[in-house]
Amino acid sequence: MNSIQSYIKENKQRFLDELIELLKIPSVSADKAFEKDVLLTADFVVESLKKAGCDNVEICETPGYPIIYGEKIIDKNLPTVLVYGHYDVQPADPIELWTSPPFEPVIKTTEIHPEGAIFARGSCDDKGQMYMHVKALEYMTSTGNLPCNVKFMIEGEEEVGSESLAWFVPRNKEKLANDVILISDTGMIANDIPSITTGLRGLSYVEVEVTGPNRDLHSGLYGGAVANPINILTKMIASLHDENNHITIPGFYDKVEDLSTEERAEMAKAPFSLEDYKKSIAIGDVHGEKGYTTNERNAIRPTLDVNGIWGGYIGEGAKTVIASKAFAKISMRLVPNQDWREITELFKNHFESIAPKSVKVVVKPHHGGQGYVTPIDNIAYKAASKAYETTFNKTPIPQRSGGSIPIVALFEQELKSKTILMGFGLNSDAIHSPNEHFGVWNYLKGIETIPYFYQYFTEMSK
Amino acid sequence: MNSIQSYIKENKQRFLDELIELLKIPSVSADKAFEKDVLLTADFVVESLKKAGCDNVEICETPGYPIIYGEKIIDKNLPTVLVYGHYDVQPADPIELWTSPPFEPVIKTTEIHPEGAIFARGSCDDKGQMYMHVKALEYMTSTGNLPCNVKFMIEGEEEVGSESLAWFVPRNKEKLANDVILISDTGMIANDIPSITTGLRGLSYVEVEVTGPNRDLHSGLYGGAVANPINILTKMIASLHDENNHITIPGFYDKVEDLSTEERAEMAKAPFSLEDYKKSIAIGDVHGEKGYTTNERNAIRPTLDVNGIWGGYIGEGAKTVIASKAFAKISMRLVPNQDWREITELFKNHFESIAPKSVKVVVKPHHGGQGYVTPIDNIAYKAASKAYETTFNKTPIPQRSGGSIPIVALFEQELKSKTILMGFGLNSDAIHSPNEHFGVWNYLKGIETIPYFYQYFTEMSK
Repeated sequence: MNSIQSYIKENKQRFLDELIELLKIPSVSADKAFEKDVLLTADFVVESLKKAGCDNVEICETPGYPIIYGEKIIDKNLPTVLVYGHYDVQPADPIELWTSPPFEPVIKTTEIHPEGAIFARGSCDDKGQMYMHVKALEYMTSTGNLPCNVKFMIEGEEEVGSESLAWFVPRNKEKLANDVILISDTGMIANDIPSITTGLRGLSYVEVEVTGPNRDLHSGLYGGAVANPINILTKMIASLHDENNHITIPGFYDKVEDLSTEERAEMAKAPFSLEDYKKSIAIGDVHGEKGYTTNERNAIRPTLDVNGIWGGYIGEGAKTVIASKAFAKISMRLVPNQDWREITELFKNHFESIAPKSVKVVVKPHHGGQGYVTPIDNIAYKAASKAYETTFNKTPIPQRSGGSIPIVALFEQELKSKTILMGFGLNSDAIHSPNEHFGVWNYLKGIETIPYFYQYFTEMSK
Repeated sequence: MNSIQSYIKENKQRFLDELIELLKIPSVSADKAFEKDVLLTADFVVESLKKAGCDNVEICETPGYPIIYGEKIIDKNLPTVLVYGHYDVQPADPIELWTSPPFEPVIKTTEIHPEGAIFARGSCDDKGQMYMHVKALEYMTSTGNLPCNVKFMIEGEEEVGSESLAWFVPRNKEKLANDVILISDTGMIANDIPSITTGLRGLSYVEVEVTGPNRDLHSGLYGGAVANPINILTKMIASLHDENNHITIPGFYDKVEDLSTEERAEMAKAPFSLEDYKKSIAIGDVHGEKGYTTNERNAIRPTLDVNGIWGGYIGEGAKTVIASKAFAKISMRLVPNQDWREITELFKNHFESIAPKSVKVVVKPHHGGQGYVTPIDNIAYKAASKAYETTFNKTPIPQRSGGSIPIVALFEQELKSKTILMGFGLNSDAIHSPNEHFGVWNYLKGIETIPYFYQYFTEMSK
């Protein structure tokens, strides 16, 4: 057994215990009620990096939540890896659907995770995957196996748009200078089918408000004669997709790249069972843009989804009322070349333009980010691929993800370096959902694989 | 000054104080959290009837909230008036829009109510209007001016569909036997334009649930490939009205009576200013079924309104999620001849039929009731009209209301008697809305007018 494997074997329980402590802190960045916990989590990350051997660990203040920076510079002439991750998590609701409390981590076995999985909000996205890098660094520093320089940048606003990071990065280009950026905030196809994410979708997130009458009205006295903002909102949202599920916003598709038949054929080679897919989320049928497969729909095509809608009486029983206002949170996943600010503007103009005179409409942009595609012909990708080959005994499949890490495009623009997305989670890990979990096997396999990336990347850089 | 006027003058403050005490009890029948308060209100009504001179006052148990019965039988050979009202109220939310707490009544003057109006949930609908009858009875019994027999039946579930009353009435036909039913739970056009409601709309209230995936999903990983139950729900609801705002449910209009040109011309004579109407609720334009005026749309035409909608993340900030479920509360106002059970069935069948295979849909009928039209050629209407003439010095205008009192049709069916709707509220009193209020002038004018109805009805019955 090689050095990293034996190190993991000796320290497995401690690696799990430390992550569980980190997962107990409810660092929900979207909700101000958790502000203290988010800051406590930042402190936890600081201590972890120090213990793992980082120098110059600091809490970098920003307009929002702090960014944790740390580094280990062993030789200016060696390449530098910048590790990015985030310590904030998605809100846990609907809490009633969790089988165990979201911030009381427990290890349970599942069909896919016979060796157990840690159930907790953030276990996979991204505390668990971020902490793999901390433990991999600990191994490399404590055993003299660190082959190059490393920098850590861990933020606390990824789940709400990374605005402070977008503020921080341009102001700290020298501090953050690197040869490659390494992120584990994505997934792979299956534990026996390793894959590396080579594409990410962009995001535009908006909130809309439709106002009808200036007060709630009796639906009998006014019903039928006054525009009901909820009915109007449903008409407006419904009109955003046509009968082929194409998005109807003028100009929305103008910059969408059409993949070649060859590229689509290459994608189609990834193992996929539509039946298993439907079964895994208990749906009678898939639903999406005409002319594209399921894997194309959620990877290379843009989308428009309502993430939340509310208005009127939603309590117990019945209330015969016409609400004064109706609201919706709407997000669009974008593909490379679509500019999120431009798309947000297109949405705003279109949505306001389709509002009837009988209501007032306000569109509030929330946040957004650009899509990204990683080239697979550079040494960073080759080093990552070889690292997976070493620990999985299989060549990983390059795969486009439907998710978004808006900051990746910004890194390339500001730091002029490529990002490698080494994800060890699974789609079935329920990130952003109740009962999020992260396989113990995946957690340890990540810690085992990461040092090989450092090794191969350093060798290939010579 | 006549006897009733002087009696009101002497007791005005007490009449107000007693009503304010009644309004302090939050008898919200839709929400189990208020169960105790609803029962306390029932007790309050019992005591009020006893003090007003009723005999045999009893709390009649039902499958739901109790019905309060009381009577004053002076001579079996004289006609009997059955007074109906309800002691429950609508939920107060959105509470934050109230300028004073909904269950802490205060008297404030308004443009329309220079003599002051009582601001509180239920002040107009229906505690205030119901209590006018109690005080009118007190006057008649205490001054020897009761010309006929009277029975009171006050229920506690009107705002949630009167199911227990529908159970109670058929089982107590003898006890409830009467020559006319008198209800004050409607409004009039203006304080200087008295009107009597001669038509009511029926109601069908349903709740719909759309289920997509069996758990909330990450909108990046699944977005575009899986049916989003919120988007689907908006499509389904939007499809329920066509471009002319006709309701698209097959068979929905089959039994709707088309009024003659003469009848519509008669209706059009009622004083109405579209500009004032729009101004009163601050809307840029009215909105409704093509080919009908505003007053026709909310009186003689059926409607379909979403009263509440919810799904996904509705908290602070952003959550990129595809919800597992989306919900809506939908009510349809029906016109005479439309059967609410039949319409509910038509809705259920249609709504389920338009659901795509990618989601599951459940339609839960809440409650409903039939529409009603009062003839204006019977002595009951004539007596009511003459009573208004006496106290307003104006002949009241017969008017169809868009509201619903589902129980009225049941009364006619079970008790074989007509209902007279003597309402003293105004549309601007914001019933079912924040800041509901009831004019002090209207409250006292009701108490003054009611005894004349008893007098004229008894005389005309000879």
